[in-house]
Amino acid sequence: MITLGIDPGTRKLGWGVVRRDGAKLIHVAHGVIKTNERDGLGARLEQIAEELNQVLGTHSPDVGSVETLFFYKDAQAAAKLGHARGVVLLCLAQKRVEIAEYAPAKVKRTIAGSGQAEKVQVARVIKSLLGLNGLPEPDAADALALAVTHLRIAPFMQALAGRSPAQRTALAALLGGKKRRRKAGG
Amino acid sequence: MITLGIDPGTRKLGWGVVRRDGAKLIHVAHGVIKTNERDGLGARLEQIAEELNQVLGTHSPDVGSVETLFFYKDAQAAAKLGHARGVVLLCLAQKRVEIAEYAPAKVKRTIAGSGQAEKVQVARVIKSLLGLNGLPEPDAADALALAVTHLRIAPFMQALAGRSPAQRTALAALLGGKKRRRKAGG
Repeated sequence: MITLGIDPGTRKLGWGVVRRDGAKLIHVAHGVIKTNERDGLGARLEQIAEELNQVLGTHSPDVGSVETLFFYKDAQAAAKLGHARGVVLLCLAQKRVEIAEYAPAKVKRTIAGSGQAEKVQVARVIKSLLGLNGLPEPDAADALALAVTHLRIAPFMQALAGRSPAQRTALAALLGGKKRRRKAGG
Repeated sequence: MITLGIDPGTRKLGWGVVRRDGAKLIHVAHGVIKTNERDGLGARLEQIAEELNQVLGTHSPDVGSVETLFFYKDAQAAAKLGHARGVVLLCLAQKRVEIAEYAPAKVKRTIAGSGQAEKVQVARVIKSLLGLNGLPEPDAADALALAVTHLRIAPFMQALAGRSPAQRTALAALLGGKKRRRKAGG
């Protein structure tokens, strides 16, 4: 299973591709899409869609793992982030890539053992876990962490695939992950 | 000049096309893109992009007129609206349609004479101004109002095209409109 983690933003958008081979997690690629603040928002979103579609074309992920919409204090910042997140979800949907969403605290807990872990702690664990040569840029580290979170949680979800809806809901709540499956042809 | 006004939303997205012929404003078409709340956000954004691209293909507008990002109290609602607005700006940028932005109060003032005008007042003025048979749905009325606002303000902007940047800035501030011109091929 190939998972693309995405940390959306209109100035910097982090992405990271991780593959699971049996019990092993293998780093495939990561990067940060950087836009020019002097460009209009439309032009920046166009650049994000173009580069993200290249990543999707190159790596053909099965799943896109994105942060849930969490609570923001700053509505203006939330709206801006929403623009980038909207373009990300659109690109995933257009390429028929399944969308999985995880809360930031869930990602930190899964990777670094605590929902309050610092960004740099998460990056260090990711570096060691995936055998990277150096610390990835913060946005790419967050994206890789989202990909790894999904690859760790997905087997539990699959193990429960034959269970009753109530059992599945209980486990999903326990894991704290939120997962949406696109209807075929929907 | 053909202008497409757009009132973005993830559940209902209003659009309205208005053409200027000399001093006359001519209604071309309007509608509301409605999505199913049971669908995931990715699927809804995909539907919005698909239907909006159909509108862009059918009517080939020169300009897309969209509300500015104004202040929201509710950050969660702002982020959701941001998703739809991001997809709208992306579709306009991809089709090389110029993006113009106007504050909600500016639209109300231009159409109904007061920045505090009620929605239904704006819809009534639009109905009478464009000679429509009935009141358009609220989201479509807002979109038509955005298109008309641009068509009324653009001539002033064009008249100042040869002036100094300082004069242009002064007039733009006076009009309260914010206008971004995409760089050719940018």
